[in-house]
Amino acid sequence: MERPAISIGADIYSLSTPLPLIDEDRLASNISRVQSYMDAHGLAFRPHIKTHKIPSIAKAQLAAGARGINCQKITEAEVFADAGFEDLLITFNIIGGEKLERLAALNERINGLKVVADSEVTVSGLSSYFANGKPLMVLVECDTGGGRCGVQTPQAAAALATLIACSESLIFAGLLTYPKPNGEEQTEAFLSEALALLKSSGLECPIVSNGGTPSLFNAHLVPSATEHRAGTYAYNDRAMVRAGHASLDDCAMHILATVVSRPTPDRAVIDAGSKALTSDLLGFSDYGHIVEYPDAVITGLSEEHGTIDLSRVAGQRPDIGDKIRIVPNHTCVVSNLFDAMTFHRDGVVTRVEPVAARGLVW
Amino acid sequence: MERPAISIGADIYSLSTPLPLIDEDRLASNISRVQSYMDAHGLAFRPHIKTHKIPSIAKAQLAAGARGINCQKITEAEVFADAGFEDLLITFNIIGGEKLERLAALNERINGLKVVADSEVTVSGLSSYFANGKPLMVLVECDTGGGRCGVQTPQAAAALATLIACSESLIFAGLLTYPKPNGEEQTEAFLSEALALLKSSGLECPIVSNGGTPSLFNAHLVPSATEHRAGTYAYNDRAMVRAGHASLDDCAMHILATVVSRPTPDRAVIDAGSKALTSDLLGFSDYGHIVEYPDAVITGLSEEHGTIDLSRVAGQRPDIGDKIRIVPNHTCVVSNLFDAMTFHRDGVVTRVEPVAARGLVW
Repeated sequence: MERPAISIGADIYSLSTPLPLIDEDRLASNISRVQSYMDAHGLAFRPHIKTHKIPSIAKAQLAAGARGINCQKITEAEVFADAGFEDLLITFNIIGGEKLERLAALNERINGLKVVADSEVTVSGLSSYFANGKPLMVLVECDTGGGRCGVQTPQAAAALATLIACSESLIFAGLLTYPKPNGEEQTEAFLSEALALLKSSGLECPIVSNGGTPSLFNAHLVPSATEHRAGTYAYNDRAMVRAGHASLDDCAMHILATVVSRPTPDRAVIDAGSKALTSDLLGFSDYGHIVEYPDAVITGLSEEHGTIDLSRVAGQRPDIGDKIRIVPNHTCVVSNLFDAMTFHRDGVVTRVEPVAARGLVW
Repeated sequence: MERPAISIGADIYSLSTPLPLIDEDRLASNISRVQSYMDAHGLAFRPHIKTHKIPSIAKAQLAAGARGINCQKITEAEVFADAGFEDLLITFNIIGGEKLERLAALNERINGLKVVADSEVTVSGLSSYFANGKPLMVLVECDTGGGRCGVQTPQAAAALATLIACSESLIFAGLLTYPKPNGEEQTEAFLSEALALLKSSGLECPIVSNGGTPSLFNAHLVPSATEHRAGTYAYNDRAMVRAGHASLDDCAMHILATVVSRPTPDRAVIDAGSKALTSDLLGFSDYGHIVEYPDAVITGLSEEHGTIDLSRVAGQRPDIGDKIRIVPNHTCVVSNLFDAMTFHRDGVVTRVEPVAARGLVW
């Protein structure tokens, strides 16, 4: 059977649930607000497509002034290359022959492809697969306090940069970090020391790429950076509100859900569970903010049900059949669950877009 | 560009990652072991397809002796009806005109469709949409301690059963519960009291459906039940091992991942994050069990990276490029992330199946 369709012009509250919705005006405003900040501080901006995985949104981000885009997987980058994007940075250590072959093919068909490396193993793999073709631009990933990938010291960054620069098949393109939120001071200390080392080695460093949404509006406190990467800012979510980056009114994504059961006076059950909201807590003890009932608490999720504690809700409580909207804790993982995204303006559906880069294995 | 393909006969360790894998023998053994238990205790068995969302697995479950299947969404049930299934139970309160119309269409084309209701609102909606067609079978959902949906007392169950039985468009088909694990005594007390009330009202109750994998092997301790529903048992996962239902060797799903960074002696980073493993903790404080390094701890997930603490690993530690297999905390939510599932026997790929009922909005 055909899947249910959603009509343009429909009232969002008439739609069947669970359903993620994107507010067009909030999305546009989030894109514009962050780009204005970057412009004001002379920082190039590179949106991360992980949050939406939709080429038309990335086009809006570029139209607003972004320099290029950031992907996390080769196959994501392929989707965006197919959509016409050229300046693509994949912030991942690409390891293994099948991936390297595919990366090389992608590099042949677009200009501006860049990847990162944080080890000699990664550099060596890249070097051998790009030996017979167009050289690949590689940035050195630095762990400036984020505690994930990255070389651990400015000295190690400079050494790896030299290794890249010495490879005939690679081009040293710069430094990159995924820092911890509010770690601007530590990040600047690392990057400026690494830059000084590169300078003393006579190595040019065209890009210094910093990233993250939570403390994005402090990006200017890392003067060594030439560009900033961020994804979540486009939709925003409850974690970004807590981080002080956005207000609830800046959250462009809502999950529309229906109350399907009211087993007790204090309990409501909705049709959005971990397969719609995800189990991402990100430090919260509950699973999202309910717009219509801010004092209600989503205490538990099973796969297709969300259990809500209404005990703190004064006044009217929701009835069976009522629809509610939820601001998710983490918007990027919700995008990853749905094949299509429904957009609206003032509650009227404007478009339905495939989440084109969802479901790509690597 | 075309998505990467996986070859039948390939060695699983040659495959690019992250990639979920299903062990054919463990899957078959899990299906057989649980069916044998149900057969031994004279319980009808109804596998929940939420765990795999793949019709060929449900066919294997039926071939082993299961009576019918359990879905959570109408569109899931449609996928399985298309694949030839008739005895379909949707364990969800179906609310709203669009869904009810679709449910009625499904009821016209298969025999054996059943749904649940736990309120007069749900029953009234069903009743009005089925008035002009084939009657729909409806079970009363009872909250016997699980704390999610369901009527709260045996008296309320009997009253709702009477309401269903009085509707010309509905057929009262039985009682259903999604109990708390190890809540057999409480569940039996609720169900037997409800059955006595139904009997005294002269209402026949053909099905009494109990459910859940964690304490599945105690299903016989609920003698009022005529059938049991379970999903997770087919793949099993780390939470089922902790619950005592299965051993690690019964876990049919592994997520194959590659070590992409070794930033420090105690830290490894893999290419499986919350978009491959999900953030489901289910009471654990870490994100999965690593088969090759059982003392390693997946301490954090970002979307495409998993961060591993190796400090407790004695002896050899993984190198960049090494592949590892992870038993996820919760297998059902992993299935929901991937468009296809790769099966293997003794590490050799046997088939790749679309996760046919994934990505269906409702």
